[in-house]
Amino acid sequence: MDFTVSTAVRDLTATVRRFVDEEVLPVERLVLDKGFGAAGVEIERLRGRVREMGLFTPHMPKEWGGGGLPFLDLAPLSEVLGRSLIGHYVFNVQAPDAGNMELLLHHGTPEQKERWLRPLVHGDVRSCFGMTEPEFAGSNPVWLGTTARREGDEYVLDGHKWFTSAADGATFCIVMAVTNPGAANPYARASQILVPLDAAGFEVVQNLAVMGERGEGWMSHAEIRLDDVRVPAANRIGAEGSGFALAQERLGPGRVHHCMRWLGICERAFDLLCERAARRELSPGKPLGGRQLVQAWVAESRAEIDAARLLVLRTAWRIDREGASATRDDVSLIKFHTAGVLQRVLDRAIQTHGALGLTDATPLAFWWRHERGARIYDGADEVHKTSVAKRILERYGMERMKG
Amino acid sequence: MDFTVSTAVRDLTATVRRFVDEEVLPVERLVLDKGFGAAGVEIERLRGRVREMGLFTPHMPKEWGGGGLPFLDLAPLSEVLGRSLIGHYVFNVQAPDAGNMELLLHHGTPEQKERWLRPLVHGDVRSCFGMTEPEFAGSNPVWLGTTARREGDEYVLDGHKWFTSAADGATFCIVMAVTNPGAANPYARASQILVPLDAAGFEVVQNLAVMGERGEGWMSHAEIRLDDVRVPAANRIGAEGSGFALAQERLGPGRVHHCMRWLGICERAFDLLCERAARRELSPGKPLGGRQLVQAWVAESRAEIDAARLLVLRTAWRIDREGASATRDDVSLIKFHTAGVLQRVLDRAIQTHGALGLTDATPLAFWWRHERGARIYDGADEVHKTSVAKRILERYGMERMKG
Amino acid sequence: MDFTVSTAVRDLTATVRRFVDEEVLPVERLVLDKGFGAAGVEIERLRGRVREMGLFTPHMPKEWGGGGLPFLDLAPLSEVLGRSLIGHYVFNVQAPDAGNMELLLHHGTPEQKERWLRPLVHGDVRSCFGMTEPEFAGSNPVWLGTTARREGDEYVLDGHKWFTSAADGATFCIVMAVTNPGAANPYARASQILVPLDAAGFEVVQNLAVMGERGEGWMSHAEIRLDDVRVPAANRIGAEGSGFALAQERLGPGRVHHCMRWLGICERAFDLLCERAARRELSPGKPLGGRQLVQAWVAESRAEIDAARLLVLRTAWRIDREGASATRDDVSLIKFHTAGVLQRVLDRAIQTHGALGLTDATPLAFWWRHERGARIYDGADEVHKTSVAKRILERYGMERMKG
Amino acid sequence: MDFTVSTAVRDLTATVRRFVDEEVLPVERLVLDKGFGAAGVEIERLRGRVREMGLFTPHMPKEWGGGGLPFLDLAPLSEVLGRSLIGHYVFNVQAPDAGNMELLLHHGTPEQKERWLRPLVHGDVRSCFGMTEPEFAGSNPVWLGTTARREGDEYVLDGHKWFTSAADGATFCIVMAVTNPGAANPYARASQILVPLDAAGFEVVQNLAVMGERGEGWMSHAEIRLDDVRVPAANRIGAEGSGFALAQERLGPGRVHHCMRWLGICERAFDLLCERAARRELSPGKPLGGRQLVQAWVAESRAEIDAARLLVLRTAWRIDREGASATRDDVSLIKFHTAGVLQRVLDRAIQTHGALGLTDATPLAFWWRHERGARIYDGADEVHKTSVAKRILERYGMERMKG
Repeated sequence: MDFTVSTAVRDLTATVRRFVDEEVLPVERLVLDKGFGAAGVEIERLRGRVREMGLFTPHMPKEWGGGGLPFLDLAPLSEVLGRSLIGHYVFNVQAPDAGNMELLLHHGTPEQKERWLRPLVHGDVRSCFGMTEPEFAGSNPVWLGTTARREGDEYVLDGHKWFTSAADGATFCIVMAVTNPGAANPYARASQILVPLDAAGFEVVQNLAVMGERGEGWMSHAEIRLDDVRVPAANRIGAEGSGFALAQERLGPGRVHHCMRWLGICERAFDLLCERAARRELSPGKPLGGRQLVQAWVAESRAEIDAARLLVLRTAWRIDREGASATRDDVSLIKFHTAGVLQRVLDRAIQTHGALGLTDATPLAFWWRHERGARIYDGADEVHKTSVAKRILERYGMERMKG
Repeated sequence: MDFTVSTAVRDLTATVRRFVDEEVLPVERLVLDKGFGAAGVEIERLRGRVREMGLFTPHMPKEWGGGGLPFLDLAPLSEVLGRSLIGHYVFNVQAPDAGNMELLLHHGTPEQKERWLRPLVHGDVRSCFGMTEPEFAGSNPVWLGTTARREGDEYVLDGHKWFTSAADGATFCIVMAVTNPGAANPYARASQILVPLDAAGFEVVQNLAVMGERGEGWMSHAEIRLDDVRVPAANRIGAEGSGFALAQERLGPGRVHHCMRWLGICERAFDLLCERAARRELSPGKPLGGRQLVQAWVAESRAEIDAARLLVLRTAWRIDREGASATRDDVSLIKFHTAGVLQRVLDRAIQTHGALGLTDATPLAFWWRHERGARIYDGADEVHKTSVAKRILERYGMERMKG
Repeated sequence: MDFTVSTAVRDLTATVRRFVDEEVLPVERLVLDKGFGAAGVEIERLRGRVREMGLFTPHMPKEWGGGGLPFLDLAPLSEVLGRSLIGHYVFNVQAPDAGNMELLLHHGTPEQKERWLRPLVHGDVRSCFGMTEPEFAGSNPVWLGTTARREGDEYVLDGHKWFTSAADGATFCIVMAVTNPGAANPYARASQILVPLDAAGFEVVQNLAVMGERGEGWMSHAEIRLDDVRVPAANRIGAEGSGFALAQERLGPGRVHHCMRWLGICERAFDLLCERAARRELSPGKPLGGRQLVQAWVAESRAEIDAARLLVLRTAWRIDREGASATRDDVSLIKFHTAGVLQRVLDRAIQTHGALGLTDATPLAFWWRHERGARIYDGADEVHKTSVAKRILERYGMERMKG
Repeated sequence: MDFTVSTAVRDLTATVRRFVDEEVLPVERLVLDKGFGAAGVEIERLRGRVREMGLFTPHMPKEWGGGGLPFLDLAPLSEVLGRSLIGHYVFNVQAPDAGNMELLLHHGTPEQKERWLRPLVHGDVRSCFGMTEPEFAGSNPVWLGTTARREGDEYVLDGHKWFTSAADGATFCIVMAVTNPGAANPYARASQILVPLDAAGFEVVQNLAVMGERGEGWMSHAEIRLDDVRVPAANRIGAEGSGFALAQERLGPGRVHHCMRWLGICERAFDLLCERAARRELSPGKPLGGRQLVQAWVAESRAEIDAARLLVLRTAWRIDREGASATRDDVSLIKFHTAGVLQRVLDRAIQTHGALGLTDATPLAFWWRHERGARIYDGADEVHKTSVAKRILERYGMERMKG
């Protein structure tokens, strides 16, 4: 195992870290105070700066306008971007666009790439991904209510989705829909279909009130309805019935990206924790950091973050060498493990701040509420634990179980 | 130990529980959807209904317009009210007014009671309590920056407070201020002084952005400034220098009230968890509640809630018999212990709901973010653990420690 | 709920506590240093002292030679006895004899009582209970390999048992065996049959090496084999096929007894923790108890022990009023909850003692290893959590599940 | 970071793993059943086999008779040896001899090496290390009662030590003793002095009863007394007053060795857990591993073990590059972090085995009791957490604290 990062990547990461700390954090302050919309001009200015630096959309090939970084090199960068809640957005590697780009890059037709991928990489438009449905358990991905029936050269979509993140203001949505309800293999019934948001019958019902906030633009999660929405059959991505396989392919690296981002949050929270502990006085000359319980949080957080990072790096390294499907156990392990570390570190950082930690004076409270979802989205902890354990136990001779 | 509740109280609790479930919860929905202000008319209607039922301000003596319930009888009532985030407000036993009433009742002069207590009990006005200061650690209650210097028949107050809950719209604030900076005993330097919000120099700077929400009216936490605010010396509550002692006296039962309320939240969260587990299907005919990890959460939550309740009841029972100062260890124990149970139960209930648990479709997400403070306000976990442990260890022969 | 203990019981408990601390603990020292056998004479002397005090076998009716204490009164006594690892034995309320006495008292024939119960109550003989089998999961109590086929006036038993505690030196064993393999109801297939250890074909194969110790006499866990063992049909206790029902009846109160005993262990461990913390110096004048992590352990242990005790008392109180079958949820809750508290408290007490805690200079190390089983015996945590959760979820509308 | 293991080391590890599983585990069975002494002949036979394989004492240079493996290469080997409780002993890299060899190798005089190191590397003799004292807290290493006063060409030692592991049968003991009580720097008061066990006045008082077992030979922990023990001044290792510095130097890599060994225990426990889960049936055709709680243990253990291993490997890699003193934070982090993982994994493996897990049919129960010390020996968790946190917080601007 070799996690060595080239000098070039190390320098790049240092540059980006400086940029995040000096230029992005002041705008993050604006987002926390006034909201994502009010900070729009400033955020666009930052994105312009990143374009000038040649670092915009770093994970996409240069031929499509990206930075061309390989997966493992992305890890340190993604962590540094994760320090700010708008870091990934400023560099145009934010979910769900980053995943949609991967999907189009690897499975889009030349026409689809030209029409949809290029403006996405350029940051001219945004997109969303319509998978989760309120009526069906996310832990059972083959149980879908949204359908796309073929009529001539078109698909006609009907369905109800939610937690369609960033639909507000997006140009298109990649929708998971059942195209082959009669397929014997339940994993071969759905397809991914690209639907423009201005198609007739596509309705963004509302931005959901998530943790008290409906948000806006990229920072929002919509409920959407598709009511007899017609799109050309050419909008299907990949083969008919390949929707689940493509979703899996997308989710693996996507989860690694989330883990890297969470580690960035952890590091920022750790900095905030330590700065507060070092400077806050309980009485004159007696810093909070002199208390042994706070010291235990510092040490435990340091160990847990570092161990989790190494596990994530190992996974990225394996994906680079062996591909996503050979590493799904690793991905499941880092998904729930890192999400757990994230919640514990945030909890300790807030507790160290006392009442201040509950306010939006730091991003800790934002992450406390909005990253509670880390243990749920892209597969709940329990789903990952169960599925990885079953595969492990099969290697010890347990028979494959159904259900 | 006898926690038997009289038939009368049991009937009362059942009545109130029905009222909360049938009439308060629909208005709570409105609060979650539209905010506390928009729900104002509906909330006032509910308060009117409670007045008709003769249950308004149940913890105050009848002579002042209250319901006259003893402390231990309040426990089951408070728990039932805690099921809704506006339950206590609807019954006019909400913090910080409930504590201010206790303070005025026991330490106010007849004039103070007539002028300030009576309208509070009647629910005509609201009040707030100005203790916490951003510049000084809450864990060191004798380290205060706010001063009240005596000038003739007046006190002149200067200071900076925050987390002055419910200041928005309040009529008066009870302010903790240093009146005797030279007192040898650091616990005898401060006094509690009643300051009308319309006094010149009293400024509500802002409602703090707490967990993304500034809130409004009773549901808010203000930053306030006192700049040469003059009030009559007769506005002091209790003896000069008694501020800390009165605060302690207030906080003990106040913490018990919080614990009772948290248990109500726990029970509501437990209901939501079990209803979701029983009804949500993972696939046709396979309820979520058939999963063993969810079953473990049900069982662990049931045990933890019940054990915590008994510990709280024992404390209330002891306070009734032995008074607040003899039971401060018990109060510290239930404060951190119940807050911990609360956070775990909320966490499990959210996890059981999946993405839905992150939305405001249930009050779980509200409590997740706004009751993160339970482990901080009224004494952080660490402060309670340390102080109760020191007293225990002294009984085992450890010498009293300073600092 | 009324947990009030009468003055008589309180006095009794104080007396017993003094006796345990002053007279039993020195002999416990001997057991830890030399073993149960070597301490035999001293232990018998103590049992004689208890007989003189009229407190021997306190839970049995006076007509059979016991002390006649009701169930709830037994709670404080059992906790005090639990402070020493030989406390229950010295008072002749030790498992498994205590449960066997209950079984014979309530379900034995007059002849069985006269012959087997009376000497047990008098402490003249010991007994054991043969339930667990190595080949079959304890979590599935209806899956048994031991059979008792009826031949004329006799049962002929064949089987293999282990963890038959205290078989070494016992006079008889109550054996759970399948008598009605064809019964439609799997819970009606087994019976409990009393088998003298000197019956032909009854073999105590070995005392199992449990946590490195085979033990001896009452402090041992045997593997036994029954090979064509013949006993009179009159040795069956209760109706044919009632074995499972009787086992359940026995296990409910038995688990409460274990919980009470564990709370006694917790209190002893808490005392040891606090004494060590108060007296051990890290450097001259700096007690270990001044460290905040140790203080947190003190406070958390105090809260957890007290909360668990109240939960156990509530269960005992309900059993006294409503019987064992109405309270099986409560029993499951206290079983896993108290066992968890026990392990955490022992862990903290050992950690506070450092290397000393690993030695047999205190009983902490003994309990650490031998009470690891508390989360396994009489139903593993997972079994209790699952079964209580299923019943709770059924009340929320979940359909009854099989398997 | 590059954790790549050469093909040679990978092959070596595979060979050793096979040897451990096929040849060492049967002898481990003997140790568990009959004790270390009774298995002596068999163990010596295994050591002979290892000598033949040329793998005896792998961490020592070839010139002294060892295998000459660098530190990082030792990691995978040590983990594989850790699978058995006698693995390290069979390969002659067991504590405390391994550390004594390092000490002599790096700080011994040529005479000391020839006389004491060579037979140690050859496995002809054993040694012990006398540091911990019952009267003084191990967390304060500069507070020692044992003295060595210089008289001419001799040191005269007086003192009382315990947890002198493997003193039973050892040839010499390296004793930590105060030689310079007046040194201003408390860290410069002690020296390490080599004392033959047959020196007059050196008494092995007893093998301590640790977790119920006194053990014997290498598997024991002695209490020793030094009463006017005279040794040549040439027996001092390193400079006078360098005892603490040498102990630190020894303990750093020693802790890494422990961590590697613990990971081997974790892997063995994980195998046992999974094998039991895969094969044990709860009812016909229903494996224990189908239970979701067991699955959660599998997944959590896998993630925690892998993350901890990477953290340990990073530390070893850094020690190889930067030396021990630059990595003491890393060493503290892995010490408490890995010990915590170890205890959790053992706990889950035992719980999965039910009653069987409490017996000595697997080594789980042995490790449960004897590795409870992992969180205590070589620095308790709390000591490591506190010291690493202080250094981290100083980097955030907290002033250095005394005490």
